[in-house]
Amino acid sequence: MESNSILIENTLILDGEKMEKGSILIENDKIRELSKDINKKEADKVIDGSKKIVIPGMVNTHTHLSMTLLRGLADDLDLDTWLNDHIWPMEASLNEDYCYAGALLGCVEMIKSGTTTFNDMYFYMEDVARAVEESGLRCILSHGMIDLGDAHKRKEEFKKTHHLIEKCHNSASGRIQVAYGPHSPYTCSEELLKQVREEATKKGISIHIHVGETRTEVQQVTDAQGKRPFEYLDEIGFLKEDVLAAHGVWLSSEEINIIKKRKVNLSHNPASNMKLASGVSPVDQLIKNEVVVGLGTDGAASNNNLDMLEEMKLAALLQKVHTLDPTSLPAEKVFQMATIQGASALGMEKEIGTIKEGKKADLAIINIKTSHLTPFRHPLSHLVYSAQGGDVDTVICNGNILMENRNLQFIKENQVLELAENAAEEMLSKN
Amino acid sequence: MESNSILIENTLILDGEKMEKGSILIENDKIRELSKDINKKEADKVIDGSKKIVIPGMVNTHTHLSMTLLRGLADDLDLDTWLNDHIWPMEASLNEDYCYAGALLGCVEMIKSGTTTFNDMYFYMEDVARAVEESGLRCILSHGMIDLGDAHKRKEEFKKTHHLIEKCHNSASGRIQVAYGPHSPYTCSEELLKQVREEATKKGISIHIHVGETRTEVQQVTDAQGKRPFEYLDEIGFLKEDVLAAHGVWLSSEEINIIKKRKVNLSHNPASNMKLASGVSPVDQLIKNEVVVGLGTDGAASNNNLDMLEEMKLAALLQKVHTLDPTSLPAEKVFQMATIQGASALGMEKEIGTIKEGKKADLAIINIKTSHLTPFRHPLSHLVYSAQGGDVDTVICNGNILMENRNLQFIKENQVLELAENAAEEMLSKN
Ligand SMILES: [Zn+2]
Ligand SMILES: [Zn+2]
Repeated sequence: MESNSILIENTLILDGEKMEKGSILIENDKIRELSKDINKKEADKVIDGSKKIVIPGMVNTHTHLSMTLLRGLADDLDLDTWLNDHIWPMEASLNEDYCYAGALLGCVEMIKSGTTTFNDMYFYMEDVARAVEESGLRCILSHGMIDLGDAHKRKEEFKKTHHLIEKCHNSASGRIQVAYGPHSPYTCSEELLKQVREEATKKGISIHIHVGETRTEVQQVTDAQGKRPFEYLDEIGFLKEDVLAAHGVWLSSEEINIIKKRKVNLSHNPASNMKLASGVSPVDQLIKNEVVVGLGTDGAASNNNLDMLEEMKLAALLQKVHTLDPTSLPAEKVFQMATIQGASALGMEKEIGTIKEGKKADLAIINIKTSHLTPFRHPLSHLVYSAQGGDVDTVICNGNILMENRNLQFIKENQVLELAENAAEEMLSKN
Repeated sequence: MESNSILIENTLILDGEKMEKGSILIENDKIRELSKDINKKEADKVIDGSKKIVIPGMVNTHTHLSMTLLRGLADDLDLDTWLNDHIWPMEASLNEDYCYAGALLGCVEMIKSGTTTFNDMYFYMEDVARAVEESGLRCILSHGMIDLGDAHKRKEEFKKTHHLIEKCHNSASGRIQVAYGPHSPYTCSEELLKQVREEATKKGISIHIHVGETRTEVQQVTDAQGKRPFEYLDEIGFLKEDVLAAHGVWLSSEEINIIKKRKVNLSHNPASNMKLASGVSPVDQLIKNEVVVGLGTDGAASNNNLDMLEEMKLAALLQKVHTLDPTSLPAEKVFQMATIQGASALGMEKEIGTIKEGKKADLAIINIKTSHLTPFRHPLSHLVYSAQGGDVDTVICNGNILMENRNLQFIKENQVLELAENAAEEMLSKN
């Protein structure tokens, strides 16, 4: 289904900066022209955009894609029981095939709900890259590095990361990039964090890390380092604008100042933070401080889906009830978090996140002729507060149509569901 | 599409009390038999239930259906601006036609997301009843009574309510019931509330009221009556087990005791309470006190949809992050809130809310062959945490198929969308 040129005709174009009626001409991997009237004949493929909205493909700034295999395995448990008795034992039996199957399932789910770019940290990442290459999506992949102070383990983690960089960085026509993925300041030694910082700067590669997700973790870091997580990371020179920190739930005002000063990017994960009862990130305050905050679903085991439309609603609603202020995090801001802010958080704001001539053709087309989006008045409000993943009709990434009228073009959906179901079954049987 | 008998074959039957494989035989309006093997030939219509789950049609315990016309009209505003500058001016231009159109749109939306019973309070309720009759759904309707101490207004409100009772109570083959709908203890006089109580007892008709939604409202009642809302209502003898109180966000422990003692039923509306920044109802604590708590979406203007699957997830997640305890409100409890507890809250637990021989055939069939419900492991977890409204495939109410394979059977969906769009357009043009 690859076309050299695609015309989306007569539609409503909506991104975090504008809303206008018109048509979009795509040529190869890029948006070539936005206009009121583009001649049909110019395009190899024409998509009727009437009764639809076109938005930038959404950007999921924090996931662990292969964890889709653990979806619904264990819920409603305290964090220790969840990790010790369920997640970690299952993860111990992961392998290449399972991670590939889970990643492919995650790719299907993201395409079907309008996400085109994601930022992933997990294990067996070369197999995740295989799935992403097939799927047509765009991503940054990082191997989750954990050394717990063990020098041998540390060496292994760098070896895996270096291998991933060599094999996958800038692969799949540039759709796949690689980042360093030190898991967190409480599972990584200072040596590991410093070496990551040094290599990342040298190679011009970004960093993906968890920081400040739970109170327990903040306490652990404070006990060990005499400082709160972001203070500690700043002190060792780790924080720069190439860092994406996931969660940032428990932040002191001093830490917010550090985040701002060092231009660290945050990923807000409301569903996961709510489901695991981690707490509420002060997103409204962060945005008022001009911090770049993207949106993320986290892994499916703590969400339990990868639906960015749902995540937008959760983010807006959670912030309002937390601050007891209904004007907190309005629809427009949360939509920006899911698009251009997410792109900025990953350092990709020049390529994706808005619908502009010259940018990559990463788009989601939403069907608005449905009862829960009627009457059709404020498109942004409808997207954030009323829509669901299933409203996404067509998805384009890097100029390729990945889904049209809800039918996947590159991936055989039924085969993926079966592959994932069997992988999960086999994995479970080992536990 | 009416059949005398319908067989749902070879499926997974799931309600708040059990999960079992088998088939369901429906005869006329009732579930006649649940069994491992029912002979096909017995049924006029056979539905293949494999790769599907059958759940009780969900029960939305608090809505204002016609407010679907106001969906997305005004969001992210403080409550005063929202009501004074947007909602009330629009409501002033409501009429019979608009309320019918909005109600019909709401019926479509509920059917498409698996709700079969709802509890509605609004205006022009005879027109809402017309829509419900056409739709095939089950409901309790109440005219929202507001007197603000005005004796003339009070008389009018009772007149409207009496007319509604005479015309609609037990209509549409018993699918439509009527309740008294005193709006709230801060908009209704003591005289109105007492007269409602007296008449409701005499006629054996239930009561639907808003209580304790916002801090401002609690303060208003406390200032006027010297007591908190539930204390005041108890003192005037208003509270009995036929009362459904919506919201119950701000409750003292004394009020929780009163609710428990008087067996008052509550409707929890997490999306609305979050979006309007009203606060968080102590649902976990109420359930531990054996209070019957159903789930509700409230009106679409403060949600902005009527999707009970989404509402379940919001309820579970909100309670966990509020208590900072991930074991709060587990999937099973929240599923019961959306089904049997909702039925109990409306005094209908003998007729609906579980899947049992002899109960009304009110069922929703969910498609599980989709990426976000794969792998398929814990059905309850998937329903609450991963599913979306669009996963509902087929809906049966009172033994009639209202939707099959997502196609509505009694209502012409496109016509309803157009009717509602035009009504909203016309209403807006008057403001
Ligand atoms: Zn994570
Ligand atoms: Zn209400």
